[in-house]
Amino acid sequence: MNSVSKGEQTKAAIVRAAMREAAVSGVNALSIGSLASSTGMSKSGLFGHFGSKEALQMSVLEAVIDKFTDRVIVPALKTKDGIARLETLFDLFITWMREKDYDAGCPVMALSLELTGQPGPMRDFIAGKQQEWMDMVARMAAKCVASGQFRADLDIGQFAFEFEGIAFGYNFSQYLLRDGRSEEMARAAFARLMADAKKAG
Amino acid sequence: MNSVSKGEQTKAAIVRAAMREAAVSGVNALSIGSLASSTGMSKSGLFGHFGSKEALQMSVLEAVIDKFTDRVIVPALKTKDGIARLETLFDLFITWMREKDYDAGCPVMALSLELTGQPGPMRDFIAGKQQEWMDMVARMAAKCVASGQFRADLDIGQFAFEFEGIAFGYNFSQYLLRDGRSEEMARAAFARLMADAKKAG
Repeated sequence: MNSVSKGEQTKAAIVRAAMREAAVSGVNALSIGSLASSTGMSKSGLFGHFGSKEALQMSVLEAVIDKFTDRVIVPALKTKDGIARLETLFDLFITWMREKDYDAGCPVMALSLELTGQPGPMRDFIAGKQQEWMDMVARMAAKCVASGQFRADLDIGQFAFEFEGIAFGYNFSQYLLRDGRSEEMARAAFARLMADAKKAG
Repeated sequence: MNSVSKGEQTKAAIVRAAMREAAVSGVNALSIGSLASSTGMSKSGLFGHFGSKEALQMSVLEAVIDKFTDRVIVPALKTKDGIARLETLFDLFITWMREKDYDAGCPVMALSLELTGQPGPMRDFIAGKQQEWMDMVARMAAKCVASGQFRADLDIGQFAFEFEGIAFGYNFSQYLLRDGRSEEMARAAFARLMADAKKAG
């Protein structure tokens, strides 16, 4: 193993620790000091891997989005049938939110709300990724319209808006309120959304 | 004007400044230093009004909830008809999110997500208030069931879950994505929720 890959491995371990911290306390609260103690590195050693706190924060956002993409988007895109693809996407989204590292709920949602009022590269990054996500959900719905599985007059932007609202509602109900019915209610809301998309307008 | 009311006025001014700061950066990031400069007070003078940063943070949460209660809940409860009451509640919720101080979106939602993974008195406070809110929305739906305006088999917990999901979706779409259709889509989703609650099961 050469020194480059060792450096990359260390960097990845720091980002993983930083992701866990940011999922609970937010990306603004990331502290080089607490990361040094959780990774067993010196502050200067840790700092040397990123050069700035801003670069570390951006690496955390990229890592969270990459993980979400790997766990939710990539496997859903393997499903060929349009309806099954949307159902798989929803299932994987629920499964993702249950990730053990994230007792605080979905880190993508938490980081999105944290950064909403803070102009800058981090906000631009997360808003851009969320727009891509919404466009992708709308395209998945459009595929079902094209195949005749959804009604021809379906508003695909509206579909994506409601899909995302259900996910936000689940995150809130499950992780803040700890309501035992959260998943059942999220699935019922999704079933209602799908049924409405299928029925004649 | 006696000295007690002057002290209370100063304290209220500090809380207002802190609310604006917390709405953008979160309640954990509240800084006595930046509040001192935004209120024109000394750090020690400012600290003297609250005694601890924790007490100031809790005052901010209470003030945000009080403001939401005054602007959204109290006026909605004045509407007697069950359906009109829910429609007023939804309208006022949208209006509240448009509050000029809050370009970051709804501060209650942002603070809820910020505190979800952080056990302690602040999380307990916001989770308790959010549970009261969800219970109130469910009771408003129950009133419509009792009056025959909503179908007898309506799941009122499900109704509240979906109501809240639409609000979260609007907050996300309007303030992070800045989608010009956000309000139209939120109103269409709410109309669909109401229509479903009215129709025979």
